[in-house]
Amino acid sequence: MRPYARPKVTLPIPQEDRIMTRVSIVGASGYVGGELLRLLLWHPEVTVVQATSGRNAGRYLYQVHPNLRGRTSLQFVHPDKLEPCDLLFLALPHGEAARAMQRYTGLAERIIDCSADFRLTDPAAYKRWYGEDHPAPEWLGRFVYGLPEVSREALRGAQYASGVGCNATASNLALLPLVRAGLIDTSKPVLIEVKVGSSEGGASSTDSSHHPERAGAVRSFAPVGHRHTAEIEQVTCLSNPHLSITSVELVRGALATAHAFAARPIADKDLWQAYRGFAKEQPFVRVVKERQGIYRYPEPKILAGSNFADLGFALDPESGRIVSICAIDNLMKGAAGSAVQCMNLMLGFEETMGLEFPGLHPV
Amino acid sequence: MRPYARPKVTLPIPQEDRIMTRVSIVGASGYVGGELLRLLLWHPEVTVVQATSGRNAGRYLYQVHPNLRGRTSLQFVHPDKLEPCDLLFLALPHGEAARAMQRYTGLAERIIDCSADFRLTDPAAYKRWYGEDHPAPEWLGRFVYGLPEVSREALRGAQYASGVGCNATASNLALLPLVRAGLIDTSKPVLIEVKVGSSEGGASSTDSSHHPERAGAVRSFAPVGHRHTAEIEQVTCLSNPHLSITSVELVRGALATAHAFAARPIADKDLWQAYRGFAKEQPFVRVVKERQGIYRYPEPKILAGSNFADLGFALDPESGRIVSICAIDNLMKGAAGSAVQCMNLMLGFEETMGLEFPGLHPV
Amino acid sequence: MRPYARPKVTLPIPQEDRIMTRVSIVGASGYVGGELLRLLLWHPEVTVVQATSGRNAGRYLYQVHPNLRGRTSLQFVHPDKLEPCDLLFLALPHGEAARAMQRYTGLAERIIDCSADFRLTDPAAYKRWYGEDHPAPEWLGRFVYGLPEVSREALRGAQYASGVGCNATASNLALLPLVRAGLIDTSKPVLIEVKVGSSEGGASSTDSSHHPERAGAVRSFAPVGHRHTAEIEQVTCLSNPHLSITSVELVRGALATAHAFAARPIADKDLWQAYRGFAKEQPFVRVVKERQGIYRYPEPKILAGSNFADLGFALDPESGRIVSICAIDNLMKGAAGSAVQCMNLMLGFEETMGLEFPGLHPV
Amino acid sequence: MRPYARPKVTLPIPQEDRIMTRVSIVGASGYVGGELLRLLLWHPEVTVVQATSGRNAGRYLYQVHPNLRGRTSLQFVHPDKLEPCDLLFLALPHGEAARAMQRYTGLAERIIDCSADFRLTDPAAYKRWYGEDHPAPEWLGRFVYGLPEVSREALRGAQYASGVGCNATASNLALLPLVRAGLIDTSKPVLIEVKVGSSEGGASSTDSSHHPERAGAVRSFAPVGHRHTAEIEQVTCLSNPHLSITSVELVRGALATAHAFAARPIADKDLWQAYRGFAKEQPFVRVVKERQGIYRYPEPKILAGSNFADLGFALDPESGRIVSICAIDNLMKGAAGSAVQCMNLMLGFEETMGLEFPGLHPV
Repeated sequence: MRPYARPKVTLPIPQEDRIMTRVSIVGASGYVGGELLRLLLWHPEVTVVQATSGRNAGRYLYQVHPNLRGRTSLQFVHPDKLEPCDLLFLALPHGEAARAMQRYTGLAERIIDCSADFRLTDPAAYKRWYGEDHPAPEWLGRFVYGLPEVSREALRGAQYASGVGCNATASNLALLPLVRAGLIDTSKPVLIEVKVGSSEGGASSTDSSHHPERAGAVRSFAPVGHRHTAEIEQVTCLSNPHLSITSVELVRGALATAHAFAARPIADKDLWQAYRGFAKEQPFVRVVKERQGIYRYPEPKILAGSNFADLGFALDPESGRIVSICAIDNLMKGAAGSAVQCMNLMLGFEETMGLEFPGLHPV
Repeated sequence: MRPYARPKVTLPIPQEDRIMTRVSIVGASGYVGGELLRLLLWHPEVTVVQATSGRNAGRYLYQVHPNLRGRTSLQFVHPDKLEPCDLLFLALPHGEAARAMQRYTGLAERIIDCSADFRLTDPAAYKRWYGEDHPAPEWLGRFVYGLPEVSREALRGAQYASGVGCNATASNLALLPLVRAGLIDTSKPVLIEVKVGSSEGGASSTDSSHHPERAGAVRSFAPVGHRHTAEIEQVTCLSNPHLSITSVELVRGALATAHAFAARPIADKDLWQAYRGFAKEQPFVRVVKERQGIYRYPEPKILAGSNFADLGFALDPESGRIVSICAIDNLMKGAAGSAVQCMNLMLGFEETMGLEFPGLHPV
Repeated sequence: MRPYARPKVTLPIPQEDRIMTRVSIVGASGYVGGELLRLLLWHPEVTVVQATSGRNAGRYLYQVHPNLRGRTSLQFVHPDKLEPCDLLFLALPHGEAARAMQRYTGLAERIIDCSADFRLTDPAAYKRWYGEDHPAPEWLGRFVYGLPEVSREALRGAQYASGVGCNATASNLALLPLVRAGLIDTSKPVLIEVKVGSSEGGASSTDSSHHPERAGAVRSFAPVGHRHTAEIEQVTCLSNPHLSITSVELVRGALATAHAFAARPIADKDLWQAYRGFAKEQPFVRVVKERQGIYRYPEPKILAGSNFADLGFALDPESGRIVSICAIDNLMKGAAGSAVQCMNLMLGFEETMGLEFPGLHPV
Repeated sequence: MRPYARPKVTLPIPQEDRIMTRVSIVGASGYVGGELLRLLLWHPEVTVVQATSGRNAGRYLYQVHPNLRGRTSLQFVHPDKLEPCDLLFLALPHGEAARAMQRYTGLAERIIDCSADFRLTDPAAYKRWYGEDHPAPEWLGRFVYGLPEVSREALRGAQYASGVGCNATASNLALLPLVRAGLIDTSKPVLIEVKVGSSEGGASSTDSSHHPERAGAVRSFAPVGHRHTAEIEQVTCLSNPHLSITSVELVRGALATAHAFAARPIADKDLWQAYRGFAKEQPFVRVVKERQGIYRYPEPKILAGSNFADLGFALDPESGRIVSICAIDNLMKGAAGSAVQCMNLMLGFEETMGLEFPGLHPV
């Protein structure tokens, strides 16, 4: 009997001579690529064999990802020198993965594509939101949507998984407990405001990412028309979710605040039931709702580097408005963390392996 | 002929022997009090005669408001020593002004109360949102709501004016162009998400304002049930505006993002017409909507210290969702700036006097 | 008799028909150019006639400087279209002013050059720190160093003035009270650590100004070898000031912390005397030294937009180490503010005209 | 053969029935206590049995340390209920540990005290810097100074270890490579400027930690006279290090910039040799010095949550000034991280165990 609480540790026995899964990362110089490297270099079951970058070929990883200094002697290789491996992570700009899928599937049996190329299952939705025909529609049906919270069983042993959109993920996780419990009046609008940090924009500097212009911003990035709407429609089956994205002063993190109206008169306990029911099957979902204290609702601040999605809610009993709140680290649960969680499921590892970091406080 | 543009300067001739209006500030050690001092000490038509603070009586103003160092030799006086003057600004905690109105009206002919005590005209609404009967309901009808954008004519020459709530002001100014143009489908919900800085919480430190906890926060401060809802109802006549407040990393500033649905099929030009129509009568309202560049929509970042309310909008033509955006400095247009603008109207000065500061960029 | 304190207001009577001084700004799209515009558009004695920008010719000023929206209808003109005026401000990249001085002096009787081109009087020092011969050494002697705190009399009525380096200005103002009072042991090293905000790097985005990389940075920008050392040598006559620049999370502002050793045993009162003696002749210098409270020493935070240089000090009586602290807004006292102050002196206006803004608190 | 680089993983096999070292934390509700919990709850060789807090007794850990939500079911216990265990961490306010050492040594064989009580070996130094006689001088000699980089061998198997001061640690690690290589001219002053984040001030809110006042600060916290000077003297044996502390906008992190003068003419290669020589024996010291890129010198930004101390340097060949730079996370290498590293040495575990987190980028 162990009378004292302690987090469950499930790391396997590392042995110099045992077989590790060989993974490579294509497009490893961006922020998602860097986060994949951070996770995979410490993952007990895999070995990172190659990290590609056209621009940075020959440079050490730490010259681009300074946190990895002294942790690995790997260098970026040119994409043309990509070799066969067991599993490939693709972290490329929009459209590039779809156009070269033939090549990548020839190099690895399993692929996780972090881009938006294979998230939507419906080519018509793709065309509507991305403004062109899908470059490789025949592949669409072969990719499992890479959010374990919605596709866990399909991901187990799967060959191909898509990544997830960070805004979509925060929105979907905010809405799913309500959707699954049938609590939303679908005749009324569902509105989601996502507040995001600057890392969402990627690693390339732009006029609007220039620090004097971006610092302290509360910037209406996409009041209407954001592409992640399509992923929310697909995952929640809500017919017209209204999405709005605002950039705030933060590097990592996203907070989705979803507003929906209750299908019937409800009380807090109905919501507690819905959220707890959803969370209890999800190793990375926590319900955050306190009557007092500082952290009464989910906050991205304490999630940087962690794979948690914290969910909370509030109810206006008079109007029946439900406010559902989800906080994530956009580079983790909103990108690389979910991708590694997918990998764990695809390869039969413990789902949480390599993703145990609980976040920092204060930070 | 002057061929070149130049802001209109309307400052009067300062003369040592001319009569200045004598104003005092009760509760001058808070953030609204400090901002009133900054504005009034430089106002060409008034002289600040007293600034009261129970806790700081005897200290120099600059010891509490460090920006005023070297600019004034005034000291805080104890509230009991308040003397008669021409106009009193009250910047007290909730409830205190209402309970002592008799005393203040005996001291000054005109009063501007920055608290929430006299904003609502309906005692029932007050009771509903503030949880108790109004302490001085007989005074409610005598106060003009202190937002010149809605009560300009009533404020001219008025004796008593209320202040405004900062979240309410950002929300109201976002909604008024739409309301006045009759563009909102009132059968559908109107949702307003306000993102606010930490100065909104006032000058007293709390556990949640402790810098390690507050820095980088995206904190669901009031997802439902915020009292400023009452002011939005009163000003916009919308029957059930849904308000949600999120604290973000920012000291000064508030951004309201209001979502409403169009009453009829509309296009951008209808919105342009509504916003321009509203703005053209308002010296401190600017319409901000650009197709490109960094500042395509209103942002509080460049408004710190200024009295502007910047308004912008976006339209989702398919769903008819209108997103109306208003940025203000919560301590200026959301509090002290509007109060001084009221004073200008009450005393017959140029409305913009002492409020010309255009904001800083970058900052 | 006026028993109540009130800041001195010295604005002249604006009249449509009176003669204003006509000024133009060359290179008006950068951050110093924008700040000059903010100051000059509201200056009671001047009219901005042209603002040039090669890249932005034809655009409205507010499209680059969003705070100026609605305040002026001026558009950027191409540098080739620069017309004669009374006074030219040059806010160009290093080297450009010097190479075209002939042209500019043909267009305006008076010139204030904000670049580093004419700050050093010694061509040898220029060559040492800028790595090349000065392009127009014959002009060096004709420019007065543009820091009124050191060249006030020479600036009165002067034809040409240089700008100042922001790090140099914070350092010089920190050291001058000690230098003038002869308190520094010059046989021991003098060390100056300047902490600066991101606006110092200018308006163009770079890899290191990308928000995710720059936010929260404490970055050793120039531990040794910074060019502003030359200006410190020239102004303070200290033979080898050791300068070190660190970038911190801040947009506007610079704090210089200078460490020197006392030439003889001293006490706080000697330092008070030195600082007060220096400050009393300087309209924009304030001494900040409190025993308690939050703002015991100078801080750039409350100086954004203001032209003040706040000075403070601490003494380690045992070792004789004097720590002298100067806070400025790098774009104001460190650039545009000092330039306008120079203009006021050159043209015989009140020295503080158009520069009265006291800063914001909190911000 | 494993041709590809991969960080060494040294985690042991967790087994339900194997014996774990039982540790408790006294004063676990502060920031250092919270960081100890984060590290120890995931440490493969220890079990946290108790975490005490007078004020929070009975509350769950996550109610104070929100990042631990869902990770542990432990509750704070009252200090009076502290039970025997194998090793005690004390994270108490100054003076409390020393006054109760008798009790704590009766409860645990080994103690690591994170306070300042047992850092100084000389009671006279303690009296000079802390203003009173040491409450338990007989214990001073029994504590090993808890910085493994200087006391590694003494810490192996030791019974008692002190913690370290965060500013002292950043300063000491900046200076030690130079001191050990004999590169410093000790006849000239050594000056250290430490820039620190707000978490250094602890978990209790104060007037100056109020977010509107602390945000964006560059605040001269202790220009002279900081107590950590004593630890720097003790560790470096420099007779009079001049320390200066400035608070900057940052929650976690400290950057020490030390300025010393070379004892003899040196070049960069001499410094490289000194730093590499120092770093090669230290698992958590990295040398950061790049000719180009963003992260040319150490930065605390990428160290949050990690135990690394990054060291870099610059040389002014003309004056012989050496600038030595050290970045740490003040709560990790500057407090809890070093304490756990000490524990690993005291208990014979792998020194780096439980401390492998490499930091985040971007963040």
